[in-house]
Amino acid sequence: MTIRIGILGYGNLGRGVEAAIHQNPDMELKAVFTRRNPASLQIATPGAQVLPVDAAADLRDAIDVLILCGGSATDLPEQTPAFVRLFNVVDSFDTHAHIPAHFDAVDAAAKQAGNIGIISCGWDPGMFSLNRLYASCILPEGQDYTFWGRGVSQGHSDAVRRIAGVKDARQYTVPVPAALEAVRAGQNPVLSTREKHTREVYVVAEEGADLDRIAREIEEMPNYFSDYDTTVTFVDAETLAREHAGLPHGGFVIRSGQTHGGHKHIIEYRLQLESNPEFTGSVLVAYARAAHRLAQEGQMGAKTVFDIAPAYLSPQSGESLRAHML
Amino acid sequence: MTIRIGILGYGNLGRGVEAAIHQNPDMELKAVFTRRNPASLQIATPGAQVLPVDAAADLRDAIDVLILCGGSATDLPEQTPAFVRLFNVVDSFDTHAHIPAHFDAVDAAAKQAGNIGIISCGWDPGMFSLNRLYASCILPEGQDYTFWGRGVSQGHSDAVRRIAGVKDARQYTVPVPAALEAVRAGQNPVLSTREKHTREVYVVAEEGADLDRIAREIEEMPNYFSDYDTTVTFVDAETLAREHAGLPHGGFVIRSGQTHGGHKHIIEYRLQLESNPEFTGSVLVAYARAAHRLAQEGQMGAKTVFDIAPAYLSPQSGESLRAHML
Repeated sequence: MTIRIGILGYGNLGRGVEAAIHQNPDMELKAVFTRRNPASLQIATPGAQVLPVDAAADLRDAIDVLILCGGSATDLPEQTPAFVRLFNVVDSFDTHAHIPAHFDAVDAAAKQAGNIGIISCGWDPGMFSLNRLYASCILPEGQDYTFWGRGVSQGHSDAVRRIAGVKDARQYTVPVPAALEAVRAGQNPVLSTREKHTREVYVVAEEGADLDRIAREIEEMPNYFSDYDTTVTFVDAETLAREHAGLPHGGFVIRSGQTHGGHKHIIEYRLQLESNPEFTGSVLVAYARAAHRLAQEGQMGAKTVFDIAPAYLSPQSGESLRAHML
Repeated sequence: MTIRIGILGYGNLGRGVEAAIHQNPDMELKAVFTRRNPASLQIATPGAQVLPVDAAADLRDAIDVLILCGGSATDLPEQTPAFVRLFNVVDSFDTHAHIPAHFDAVDAAAKQAGNIGIISCGWDPGMFSLNRLYASCILPEGQDYTFWGRGVSQGHSDAVRRIAGVKDARQYTVPVPAALEAVRAGQNPVLSTREKHTREVYVVAEEGADLDRIAREIEEMPNYFSDYDTTVTFVDAETLAREHAGLPHGGFVIRSGQTHGGHKHIIEYRLQLESNPEFTGSVLVAYARAAHRLAQEGQMGAKTVFDIAPAYLSPQSGESLRAHML
């Protein structure tokens, strides 16, 4: 009996989830729900349905876990509490400051309906959070460092695209190698924003646009760029399409601590991802397996990666995991 | 109300556990149990008792979790099933091939007594196992690599000490940088034992011993050294004491996989530990907290790191973890 999955939202992340389902033989994609015209969608799974979002309620008994692939700004705050009334759900809500409120809203709705809602699965929040938690529990005295990149920040790319005269743009967040090395060497440096990351921007400008003015507007943009050393490079549309089409990302979570005997210890977790949405989709799918199992045990309510024993993510039995992976 | 801890066995690991308890204000060391003469032990915790092992049963009601700090070869296979009949226990059993049998023995005894027994906590097995599990669940298609070191292998050091003419020795396991770089670069190399690690041995020889013969016996020792490129360096006792007194260790767990869309992803977990026993002791203490909580919930039986939700390791509430660490 496979775990029957639904996907809500078929952008980059929805396609990443679909790709991940193909790698997990205990799972099956039953339906994709979209706000677009279903006939306009070409999905990669023969046999799965493409349906309007409104039709989701009709498939309540045909789907074990619904994976929500909308955005954190406006989609998920509404969708996750709404759909957990109908399904076990998993989302990748990533607005760190609003996680407590999102958790409470999902928890209340999930408990009323008797379903499971796992929120904030991905890599940050998600795998990075797990590593922050494990490391801080093992080394209560220490410093945490998170570096992101080298990778594409969609929010920063969008911010540049809103500047007059910019046709298209791609922004990379890049950790500063010297800062990373100082942390890895156990020096526990105090690092300013500028010392931790640099920003690289590739811009396609409109013909005749004032390039100096565009570069200055980028470099001086508050919150997004003004606290960073930023490099702006103007390229043509073909170069952007050829060299900057991907969505790589990754980063480092490092805890540098010491035990009571005075010895130093460094715990480092690093991700190098060629495709941010495909990796995030893979995390969501692993937690969808956990959601299904927790629901089968009769558990309900909102959960995060902190609340879920690692074995729930694996298709293998406890015996097999102990024999082969411990 | 603090969590009251007992330590069984006061070698390097027992002292590491004691040091870790000092960093966790929600815990308190009540007693150290030893097979040596208790009067001969000088412990670092004022107010804690030092008692013979036989006295442990008398402190059943005074101790919430007993941390077993014996060796995996002969101590733990007997001690963990025996003491889980009296206490909730945590051990660092690390003979990978015998974990399933150890689990079964502890599980049966723990369920009979209504206690919790968490086995194989440390870094390998332990944190390395967790990272193997998480990474393989997220990237079902991929290759796992584990590198150990640079660090002291006590088993290899002991093996060298048994050679005639050797007064003392210290063996370091060292990952081969080129192999590590090939893995990190996503090349998925097939690596022989020799290609993954080298071994460095520092030997204090007895006066007049045949150094060539000792070096040859080390390099040709089956299982321990013959499959590796080994460097033997003869030093005097003072140099060994000055430069090789510590017990550093660490290593890397890397999964190099790809998602269905064909993109590559590398997940890397790295430890750099100045003191293997102090770090292992810190992991044991974090899981002792989990053991206490699971027991308070009425759970029983054997558990491993795979079975325990990460939040159980932390003294913080779920609310606090979600607000600050997710």
